[in-house]
Amino acid sequence: MYREEIQVLDCTVRDGGLINQYQFTDSFVQSCYRAACEAGVDWWEIGKKLEVSDQYSKAEWGCWNFCENDDIQRVVDSHDGEQRAKVAVMYDVGRVDVSKLGPRDQSPIDMVRTACYVADVDKGIDLVRRTKDLGYATTLNIMAPSAAIESDLIEGLGQVNEVEEIDFLYLVDSFGSLYSEQITAYVKLYRKHAPSKQLGFHGHNNQQLAFANTQQSIIDGVNLLDATVNGIGRGAGNCNLELLLQFLKNPKFDVRPIYRCIQEEFLKLRQEIEWGYNDIYGIGGCLNQHPRAAMKQRAKGDDKDHCYDFLLECTELDEAALD
Amino acid sequence: MYREEIQVLDCTVRDGGLINQYQFTDSFVQSCYRAACEAGVDWWEIGKKLEVSDQYSKAEWGCWNFCENDDIQRVVDSHDGEQRAKVAVMYDVGRVDVSKLGPRDQSPIDMVRTACYVADVDKGIDLVRRTKDLGYATTLNIMAPSAAIESDLIEGLGQVNEVEEIDFLYLVDSFGSLYSEQITAYVKLYRKHAPSKQLGFHGHNNQQLAFANTQQSIIDGVNLLDATVNGIGRGAGNCNLELLLQFLKNPKFDVRPIYRCIQEEFLKLRQEIEWGYNDIYGIGGCLNQHPRAAMKQRAKGDDKDHCYDFLLECTELDEAALD
Repeated sequence: MYREEIQVLDCTVRDGGLINQYQFTDSFVQSCYRAACEAGVDWWEIGKKLEVSDQYSKAEWGCWNFCENDDIQRVVDSHDGEQRAKVAVMYDVGRVDVSKLGPRDQSPIDMVRTACYVADVDKGIDLVRRTKDLGYATTLNIMAPSAAIESDLIEGLGQVNEVEEIDFLYLVDSFGSLYSEQITAYVKLYRKHAPSKQLGFHGHNNQQLAFANTQQSIIDGVNLLDATVNGIGRGAGNCNLELLLQFLKNPKFDVRPIYRCIQEEFLKLRQEIEWGYNDIYGIGGCLNQHPRAAMKQRAKGDDKDHCYDFLLECTELDEAALD
Repeated sequence: MYREEIQVLDCTVRDGGLINQYQFTDSFVQSCYRAACEAGVDWWEIGKKLEVSDQYSKAEWGCWNFCENDDIQRVVDSHDGEQRAKVAVMYDVGRVDVSKLGPRDQSPIDMVRTACYVADVDKGIDLVRRTKDLGYATTLNIMAPSAAIESDLIEGLGQVNEVEEIDFLYLVDSFGSLYSEQITAYVKLYRKHAPSKQLGFHGHNNQQLAFANTQQSIIDGVNLLDATVNGIGRGAGNCNLELLLQFLKNPKFDVRPIYRCIQEEFLKLRQEIEWGYNDIYGIGGCLNQHPRAAMKQRAKGDDKDHCYDFLLECTELDEAALD
């Protein structure tokens, strides 16, 4: 599949850091950045840009939860190649302070992505407007649409449609619950109610469908695609960047630096932290559940793989009538 | 997705046995059969029906490489539920002796599936005719169409179209190399040149697409779907039966016995033998390679995960001009 407009956003460090509270070594983060640059990836998301506080310190939560300019600059300066991935960070509604974000021309950041639930679209729009005023590229990522009442989602999409400061609107399969036919239906809905927006897609791999659904989103016309090296990410993880680049067949991409990074950095990391598909996440995805129940099951030591018990536990409440 | 005509074939033991030379315990095979019956699966493939010889003994190669009637009967009799999955076995062209297959009414077998490459379609058709004469349900599974010259494939499909003894013609993604858009293209090709045939689909998970491609085949009208418990199968394995049953939403299926079987039998097995997606199979799938190169890499001990080295090794020959 080749379409000139398609751009890839590598959110390896941002999404991977959710597993280990951003306790990556500098060397790891620098290797990821170099790989993304050399692979020709368009955007590289290094972390969240939340506010430091006494309860929420860099030491405990990791510097990529806060993405201060000096920390980012250290990574950017570590690579001396000419080909560069542009740097993105993520804003969570309610946990950021835009007044501390300087203008783009004084920052190593190129894009700020704002994530919010449907109920917080107004707050998300406000953040996007203020970051766009500072000169940044912007996205609005509406989380968990599969758990929203459709009329609320439609209302939010209508609001998004009016906001020219939003460069990309993201369809996010937060629970990894969508099948390809539902990707098509959501893209259609987003296009209908926010026709002025270019679309992005962010999948999760709970049902082994992150890569397949990303392909489906491309077929349906989505042009900004999230992926991570080795599919790293909370729970079942994300779309594998290396698979996606090979699918795209665009000569601007070179998958080899990604596989080198996997061999040099990720083989070790996979011994230390867990991510990716397993039976428990599969059940959670299929039930359109927030991943917290599955993550709790995965923390159960010897019982973590007890998928039958987990399925019964998840469904027995559903079977009791709620009428 | 619900369509009344859809049938599911569970080839757990047949495809899983390729990993361990069919050295499953009777108790494991019986548990798999019980799970398939209780889950409402339509067909259950227990193994290959090859010829025993001095070089090719039951002790060394496992009894499910040969599927003698007494062995199958032992499994069938171990379960006393009323709901039954019909029993299938697989024929490999060139390694079987139809003269030793008794008539269906004296056998625990309901279906014989014949697998062949495009070059052997004539031989495959001959086997199918002779098994149909004995009263069995039949399929012809043409392997590795992605490695065939299309005009040869089309010629084979044309022959298949004339053979009324073939109940189902299978599209087989032997190398796990197909994307969903290619599934659609192949199904269209099969329909065009073998319009008299009902279609089946058998995927492989090299690129994490076995389940997604099975969904795509359903959307494209395929009605007989292969899957295995936990996706067990040679190399990257197959479509996960438990994910597929949940997708199908047909009330005749119940996924719970499958998850119980995973919890009781597969958690142990996963400690003993390896299957499923990894970087090496991903590369092999993307390159449309026979899985033998990837399997050789996976046998390399400490280097088995060296995906960058493997990629360079696989592609350096390709980059040398063959003109």
